[in-house]
Formats: sequence, structure tokens, C-alpha cells
Amino acid sequence: MMPAQARIADTEKPRILIIGGGFAGLELAKALRRADAQVVLIDRTNYHTFQPLLYQVSTAGIEDSSIIYPFRKIFEDQRNLYFRLAEVQSVDTEKRMVETSIGLLHYDYLVIATGAETNYHGNEQIGQKAIPMKDVEDAIALRNTILTNFEKALQIEDEELLNSLMDYVIVGGGPTGVELAGALSELRRHVFPKDYKELDFIKMDIHLIQSGPQLLKGMSEEASRKSLQYLEDFGVKVWLNRRVKSYDGHTVTLDSGETIISRTVIWAAGVAGALPEGLRKESIGKGNRLMVDEYNRVAGYENVFAIGDIAAMITEEYPEGHPMMAQPAMQQGRLLGKNLMRLMAGAAPQRFAYNDKGAMATIGRNHAVADLKIARREYRTQGFLAWLIWTFIHLISIVGFRNRLWVFFNWAVNYFSYNSAMRLIVGKKKENMPAEAVTPKTEVGIGSGDRR
Amino acid sequence: MMPAQARIADTEKPRILIIGGGFAGLELAKALRRADAQVVLIDRTNYHTFQPLLYQVSTAGIEDSSIIYPFRKIFEDQRNLYFRLAEVQSVDTEKRMVETSIGLLHYDYLVIATGAETNYHGNEQIGQKAIPMKDVEDAIALRNTILTNFEKALQIEDEELLNSLMDYVIVGGGPTGVELAGALSELRRHVFPKDYKELDFIKMDIHLIQSGPQLLKGMSEEASRKSLQYLEDFGVKVWLNRRVKSYDGHTVTLDSGETIISRTVIWAAGVAGALPEGLRKESIGKGNRLMVDEYNRVAGYENVFAIGDIAAMITEEYPEGHPMMAQPAMQQGRLLGKNLMRLMAGAAPQRFAYNDKGAMATIGRNHAVADLKIARREYRTQGFLAWLIWTFIHLISIVGFRNRLWVFFNWAVNYFSYNSAMRLIVGKKKENMPAEAVTPKTEVGIGSGDRR
Repeated sequence: MMPAQARIADTEKPRILIIGGGFAGLELAKALRRADAQVVLIDRTNYHTFQPLLYQVSTAGIEDSSIIYPFRKIFEDQRNLYFRLAEVQSVDTEKRMVETSIGLLHYDYLVIATGAETNYHGNEQIGQKAIPMKDVEDAIALRNTILTNFEKALQIEDEELLNSLMDYVIVGGGPTGVELAGALSELRRHVFPKDYKELDFIKMDIHLIQSGPQLLKGMSEEASRKSLQYLEDFGVKVWLNRRVKSYDGHTVTLDSGETIISRTVIWAAGVAGALPEGLRKESIGKGNRLMVDEYNRVAGYENVFAIGDIAAMITEEYPEGHPMMAQPAMQQGRLLGKNLMRLMAGAAPQRFAYNDKGAMATIGRNHAVADLKIARREYRTQGFLAWLIWTFIHLISIVGFRNRLWVFFNWAVNYFSYNSAMRLIVGKKKENMPAEAVTPKTEVGIGSGDRR
Repeated sequence: MMPAQARIADTEKPRILIIGGGFAGLELAKALRRADAQVVLIDRTNYHTFQPLLYQVSTAGIEDSSIIYPFRKIFEDQRNLYFRLAEVQSVDTEKRMVETSIGLLHYDYLVIATGAETNYHGNEQIGQKAIPMKDVEDAIALRNTILTNFEKALQIEDEELLNSLMDYVIVGGGPTGVELAGALSELRRHVFPKDYKELDFIKMDIHLIQSGPQLLKGMSEEASRKSLQYLEDFGVKVWLNRRVKSYDGHTVTLDSGETIISRTVIWAAGVAGALPEGLRKESIGKGNRLMVDEYNRVAGYENVFAIGDIAAMITEEYPEGHPMMAQPAMQQGRLLGKNLMRLMAGAAPQRFAYNDKGAMATIGRNHAVADLKIARREYRTQGFLAWLIWTFIHLISIVGFRNRLWVFFNWAVNYFSYNSAMRLIVGKKKENMPAEAVTPKTEVGIGSGDRR
């Protein structure tokens, strides 16, 4: 089972190389803590991101450091783990070597846990003008953009220009899109009118565009229906059965021919596997995911594995692979950890069986939808109870004691005060409004009487 | 006293325009909360920065959001205040108009509170290669740079290259330079060796360069001497009576002819007033500061004032103006608020008298130097007691309840664990090491046996 290969220097142990420290890679690395191997984890950031709460960073609910956690701190006491900050360029499975931004790395076992990346379906213009929602730098850029929009809006007299700055389009009716739309509508109702007393928030429209006939595809019919109802109650304009055809930084054109004007389009739709180069084409399936067997071994390879969003394990129950969520990723990571140790010991690996615990999404304060599976029985709930469950599960899931306590404290304060102090513009932002439009060489009106 | 001038629309009240929301501008704006005027505060960021703790952000001790606070939240309930996110381009005192990035703004009273900016004394190359320490974006860039240096260092075999990445040069022996040097030496001793077990931190040198014969110029002789002693105890190499002549991203050349090799030079020396264009040359004094009378009125103007670091109020006791610190700035801001109200009411203004409460600086955990003045009596203390006083005063000074509590919590956790989770690389960084140097096309060694 162990490949015969030269080891580096005195490192006689086999090297397990994990690409990506998301939910899957992180759980795998932890599960290998007692492995008699050199575990090398590479990632392009030096921290793990708790992605389910990204939307809260982008809506100024919590700070970025509450949902990201340095790998070196997570693995402080794991002696067999080596972290490297690096980007993968390609894989050479013949030479068992990965080319990265820091040089070449050999492996005995390779685990690809690179997750998914934003997919604009080849539409480059959308990619340039829209804001993606995959990592914490995206979320910070979105937060900065939203706040900058309102700061600019204060100077604008022209109604059409003003509307283009105050309106938001969210593309994608999955959990991220729904949660983002809910959080934005909360800000519109409770927070922004206090911060920007001179602006009229009746003018702020929030559009949510979903390609299919229902929101939260993959969840129960009740969850889809209730989430739609909550969003509509909150004044979000939900467009079902529509796809975005183009976006030029000003006009969103839908496949139905309808158009929406907005300077800010948030892309929470369509992801595709973030594949490194060099793997055989036959192993790559729909959505750029790697076809894996029930041990998460990539089709056609002996010692290359894939886990999490990048892996498509086709089964009778999951003909398109498992949902691209934290739970399957974590479970695959944990099992692969055990299986690699079994393989190295010459024992037989164990098949993966997904323990589906359900799914949920929150829509603003006090509202969530949850489809829970406990001991193979389904429980569906919507509203306040679902929100409490959502809150509880997300709190206990966050990595690290400090973060958990702090996120909780932050939430508690925000919950009672409707007022966080996170509305900070620090770092990059997206500016689709031409500068001339907002910097007139005429005198600026300030104060209620000035605005017509 | 009130200038006869057209008001905008129905805004019949005189407009007080404050440029800059640092300590001086913030206190002034608050002091004007009952003024029968339209108070307009402009700043190029949407938050106030608690500058004394910047060095803690740059050394991953606390997160940026703990020391910055949105203006709109600070002034939520102040009805006469209007905040605008804008950069000032020039002032036209004839027309009583300020040109900004958002358009023209008229004023009845203008208050310049633009503070100081980093001054490289005309040496552009240093400006391009060094990292300044004036705002939170600088501090984040420094944090990212330090962490990225060590991540890169893991791949480097060449001793000279390695040393250039692991060595730090801090220019300027004022409070910022001293506190930064102390914090870096703490990280070297307690934190980095845990994070980067493969690196040998004996190799990490910290240099502090001070132009004069003592550190913390302006403080007592004991404070200077003790801070030097603490830093030397912590292994910081202090260079007194040296100036930096040039820096090319690799070699620091001192005026003595000596050289130090480092990829990371932090510029905490030399600031100059951040003056807008358009003011008469006769009003500008040494270090680009505006000459003001004892009412903080700029020489030669009736309705233009300057407060804080940008203002030089020459008195017998302060022949070079007041020290560029938070205390004089805040006191000037507060008094000018009262004086503007007096002026508008036709009453006589009150002269500024600086209530010097002393100065202090902290050098790592448990060590600080403090020269306190209480009821005109001086108390000098160094060591642990000074550190407790420093901590207490900084905690109670931070704006906003949430920040105070959070900074305290953070500090407490760090104090007992020597371990914060802030070691995150998010946002921009400075990279003086050529990419080729750290991305060999050869195999990378990982693990103790690999490093020669």
C-alpha cells in the first residue's frame, strides 16, 4: 500500500499533503493527529474561515476576526502537522509532486480539499462588476461597498443616480443569498435610517434573484415557502425563475428581458469546484467536481483523494453527489483521516455514509427555517424556534473558545440594541459609480432643507 | 462677529466646518452639541481612530475594530452634527469655501484638525519601501507583513535572505517606536516560537533607531533611561544619535555610515502637519504646523481655527507649540467648542491653558514608564505600577462601551495565555523580498530534518 519513494532528508514518515483548510481539510488534519505520518496542510490564507457567517461580516454584524481563526493556533499542539501558506498551481500525479507558489512538494498521499469557487458561467463582465461571497476578503469588500454607497448617496440630487446607489441585487437564492437579503432588510429597517438620517430608505430596494422556482433548493417545501414569505414580509423583491444574463456595473439584464438598475450586485449563485491543474479529465465530473469512490478516492488514482465541495461521490441517494455544505465536508474529512491511518497500517478502509443532520437558514432576527434530521427522523420548524436552533448550532460550531464567546457577546449586544459598531470602511471596496457622478464642482447641500 | 453670507436653502444657522475627526476634531464636535449652528465634520475615514493603541493592532494583539469607532455611531444622537466622508483638497478663505472630494462646502467658521502625517523628509525611496504607522490601514499592513515574512522564511535556506526577512528596523524612538519595539520583542519571546516551530528566533533582530541621544524625548530623564534599559533587557538593539539616510527595501544606511539589512522598516519617526492647500504662507510654521493664537485662531484669519497636532500655539512654556499628543488636542477641541459658542453669542472667548497630565509609554508586558502630573505635582514611576496605570488610563479613554469591554477582555485573555487569535493575514501587505527569492522551482523541505 505504501508507495516506494525517496523521503526528504530524515523525514522517514510518509507525507500526507492536504490542499485546503476549509471544513473538510481542517477536520481531516485534526483526525490525523495521531497518524504516524508527516501531515502537510497548505492553504492560500493563514486562517480557517467559518463560511456560514460570512454574510454577517458583509452586513457589519460581526467583525472578520470573529469568523476566521489562524491555522497555526488551531494546530499549535499537533506535532505531526506542518502548515504552509501557499497556492497550488498544478499536480503531477506521476511524480507525486505538487507545484505551489512556494516551490514543489512531494506527497505519498494527496488530499484535494480545495472547495468551490465562484462561477460566473463564463460571463467575465459579471465577474468584474459583481461582488462575490466566497471568502472573508469578499465579505469585507461588500461591507465597505455598502457603507460607501450611502456615504456617496448623501451628495446625490439626481433621483436615478441615487436609486442606482441605494438598490441592491443579490443573485442566488441559496442560504447565502437568502441570509444576506434578510440581513440587508434588517439594516434598512433598523440601522441605516439612524446612521443616515438625511436619506430616505423607502428608496432602498433589495432584489433577490433565483434561477429556479423556489428558494433554498434542497430544503423542504415548507422551508422554501416560509423563507419566501419572510423575505417578502421584510420587503425584499424576490424574482423566481430568472437568471442574470448580463451586468455592466449599472444595469442587470435578466434572461426574461427585464432589467434592474443597481451599482451593487452580489453574486451568491453558482459555484464550481476549485480544481488544480494536472488531473486526468476522466476524473472530473459535473460542476468541475472530482469523481470519488465511497472512500473519497479520486477515480483512476491510488493515492489521490478528494473531500468536501470539490468531491462528487455519486450514490443512489445522492445522484449528484452530496450537498456542498459544511456537514458532508466535515464527515468526509473525519472518515478519511481514519481511513488513511487504516491504509498505512495495511487495514481495510471504511465506506462513507452521510449522516444528514438537515439544513437551515436564518432570515433576519427571530426568523429562520430548519429541516432537522435526528436519528433518521425529520423535524421541520420555521420562525423563532428555528432561529434559536440556528443560533445555538452556529455558536457551538465556531472554532475556538474566544471566537465563540465573542460572537455570542456581539450578537447579544446587537440583538438588544440593534446597533453594532462594525460599520467601518477598512480596506478595498467596489466602485461601480463613476467618480464624476458623485464629485460635482458645485456646492454640496447639507441638512434637511438642502435635499429636494 | 457673524459673517454676512448666504445660507444654503433653509439652513439659516451658521456653519462650523471641522476638517478631521481625530482627538481634537472629535472633542470639538462633541463640545458643540448644544451650539445653535450646523456642525459639519468631514474625515477621509468613517471612523475615529484611537491612535495610542495602533501598535497593538500591528503586532496582532487586538483587532482593528477594537480601536476604531464609526463617527455615525458616536454622533447618533447629536442633531446639529452632519458627518461627511470626504478628503479636503484646498481651502478658499476669501470665498469661505472648502474644496473636497465630494464637492464644495461653504463655512462660517472653519476648524482645521487634520493632524499630522508621516514625514520622510523628502526621501521618496524610504516612503515607498518603509511601512508608516499613522492609521489603522498602516497597522494592518504591518501586521500582515510581519506574519507573511515568517511564512516565507520557512522556505528559505539561504542564511542572508533568511536574516533579511527575520530582522526588523523601527525608525523613531518616540512612544510609537518604543511600544512597537517592546511588543515585537514580546512576540519574539513568547508567541512566534510557538507558531513557527521550525524557525530559530535567535535570528530575529529588532533594531530601534533614534536620532537624538535619548528615547521618549520630552519625557523625564528617568523615563528615557528606564525605557532604554527595558528594551535592552528584552534584546532590542537601540541605536542612539543615528538617522536613516536611505533604504532601498534591503539595506538601511545610517548617517553614521553603518548599515542594517532588513526587508521590513517601520517608520515611526518624523511627522509634519497635514495641511490643506490655500492658506497663507505666513501662517505656516515649523513642521508644517499652523501658527495659532491663544484662542487657536490661525494667524491672519478671523474665522479660521486650528487645533491638535496641526496647530502650533507658541507660548513661553511651549516655545515649539504643545506636544503632538492626545491631551493637548482634546483640551483644545473642548475649549474651542465653548469659545465658538461664546463668539456666536457675542461674548469674549477664553484663553487656552494646557493642563499637562504627563506622558507615558509601555514596553511589553508589565513594563512602562510614566511621568504623571497631578495638581501640578510630578510623580514619576517605572515598571509594573506604571504599566498598571498605563493600562487603566488607556482602557478608560477608549471611545465606546463595547470597545472598552472588548479591549479589556482581549487583553486579559492575552495576558494570561500569551496567545491571541489575531495573527491573521487579511488585506494588503508590503513585500520587499523579490518573489523569485522565495519560490524556488526545487523541492521544498518541510520538517525539522529538512532545514540545514
